Amino acid sequence: MSELNHQVRLAERPTGVPTASSWQFTEEPVSPPQPGQFVVAISHISIDPAMRGWMNPGPSYIEPVELGAVMRAGAVGRVIASEHPRFSVGDHVYGALGVQEFALTDGAGVTKVDPTLAPLPTYLGTLGLTGLTAYFGLLDVGRLREGDTVAVSGAAGAVGSVVGQIARIKGARAIGIAGGARKCAWIRDELGFDAAIDYRSEDVAKALRRHAPTGLDVYFDNVGGEILDAALTRLARGARIVICGAVSQYNAAKVHAPSNYLALLVQRASMTGMVVFDYANRYAEASAELARWLGEGRLISREDIVSGGVADFPDTLLKLFRGENTGKLVLALG
Amino acid sequence: MSELNHQVRLAERPTGVPTASSWQFTEEPVSPPQPGQFVVAISHISIDPAMRGWMNPGPSYIEPVELGAVMRAGAVGRVIASEHPRFSVGDHVYGALGVQEFALTDGAGVTKVDPTLAPLPTYLGTLGLTGLTAYFGLLDVGRLREGDTVAVSGAAGAVGSVVGQIARIKGARAIGIAGGARKCAWIRDELGFDAAIDYRSEDVAKALRRHAPTGLDVYFDNVGGEILDAALTRLARGARIVICGAVSQYNAAKVHAPSNYLALLVQRASMTGMVVFDYANRYAEASAELARWLGEGRLISREDIVSGGVADFPDTLLKLFRGENTGKLVLALG
Repeated sequence: MSELNHQVRLAERPTGVPTASSWQFTEEPVSPPQPGQFVVAISHISIDPAMRGWMNPGPSYIEPVELGAVMRAGAVGRVIASEHPRFSVGDHVYGALGVQEFALTDGAGVTKVDPTLAPLPTYLGTLGLTGLTAYFGLLDVGRLREGDTVAVSGAAGAVGSVVGQIARIKGARAIGIAGGARKCAWIRDELGFDAAIDYRSEDVAKALRRHAPTGLDVYFDNVGGEILDAALTRLARGARIVICGAVSQYNAAKVHAPSNYLALLVQRASMTGMVVFDYANRYAEASAELARWLGEGRLISREDIVSGGVADFPDTLLKLFRGENTGKLVLALG
Repeated sequence: MSELNHQVRLAERPTGVPTASSWQFTEEPVSPPQPGQFVVAISHISIDPAMRGWMNPGPSYIEPVELGAVMRAGAVGRVIASEHPRFSVGDHVYGALGVQEFALTDGAGVTKVDPTLAPLPTYLGTLGLTGLTAYFGLLDVGRLREGDTVAVSGAAGAVGSVVGQIARIKGARAIGIAGGARKCAWIRDELGFDAAIDYRSEDVAKALRRHAPTGLDVYFDNVGGEILDAALTRLARGARIVICGAVSQYNAAKVHAPSNYLALLVQRASMTGMVVFDYANRYAEASAELARWLGEGRLISREDIVSGGVADFPDTLLKLFRGENTGKLVLALG
């Protein structure tokens, strides 16, 4: 194979926001597949807040990325060479293929996707781990019931935008918390959220009191920090808080801890962490339902696509922490 | 009736630790019972960390004590006059009878207790709300399973000492966190805890690592603050944290929030608040089991009894916040 593979590797574990010195750019020839292997030409790379956690040392819900290794990333692409019995040239696939142009793989954790059912980037978002996270987080961990009032932070983000829509589909009231008037207008006017709160210009606790006079039955947290603390002041009896992420905290030197956690006692509420991987044996069931909603137009999927090369990965990742994306952030390789 | 009733009333809502000016001492003649009422001569008053919360303004899991009202307290005593069809002179009863010598009541929330089965103070402790809190907190909220590793803070306190013993009875490993060598020796040597950690002389996180090498399946929290934060660093996958109280925080100007809460995500763990009143319809079932264990000698009940008058209530309450009690703190009226 004559192609050169451009890659982004983890050079250094950052403290705070990743910088240029966090990354190393490498190139190497694409190796031809051995028996049982195939090569994917990557077209779209998923950009996720969780990536920041994978850069840290020490144990978490998944092993850290090794120093010097290609940065971990979900990606979709097309098989261009195969010595694998189940994957053929021309197949479109999803997997943790990394921030690079070509991936040589034995197929572990790689699944085929159908580009005629949905555009490829949708398999990184609503039909990928993003959608599954929203689905299991809200329905299983959050134990959503018809008539519930749900609030979600990061509501214009990849997971949050799906959470609010599933809440509506299931007969609940959805309140989104997002940064800026444009995002708020989008979730309210295009996605159908019942209310939107702009945390940049509104007092979130006060706004929640107005939009959820009987309190929150479910609060789905993607951001942590002060917004989590505000939500804690507005819980209904027996509320379920889903801790999906804490994008506001991943680069913080000191975590803003939830000072109002004793509201859990007062309201007999729970706060539960989730990792979507635990639901792997139910992905098929959830994906089918998400695809059906998408097909029926009840669920709107939006990808925020940055076109470029793998060298644009570091800057694209920072967009997440600046809250610049609307919907699922994807790097499309040009 | 010729008796004078001495009472302690809430004079002022404290900030921080209650002081002399928080209380008002009153005396008034005991009113004779009207039809449907009876009078209880109180012998033992329950002293609980929760009392501090009842002194605060604003909504909580129970209404605050009104300014000028007799301070709320669980108590036991003997009926000395009755115009009530179900309560007779000589009956022993438990109820929220208040910090006073005599209570006139219509019997709402008052239950008879049998002083031949257990000493009266035990009905404020292991056979009272204390024991019920430990029971439902550990078994229902904590979803204890045989073989689990359980840690409990405030382990030499009223609730904590029962939690560890129930854990042992149910085939789990119990680690107690308490203040001082004497308390630690008591829970380990007399109550049968598998391990005791003295938070005054040990690094709690390190000690938990040593005593719970595979992590905590249940952490039952009575204290909050730094100990909760330490426990968060040692959770097993799928751990359940029971938030029963936060005695270290009730007088704090600024709550020490659980900075390590993202461990919930990493470990897919939950943190759930509980209030024993929610289990009222199951008190009978739990009390019967607690009484059986007590009768079989598998459960040891200890009351830390201060003898005095109601005027000793303010100082006795402070013992709790200084961690001076071992077992259930009770004020016995002389």
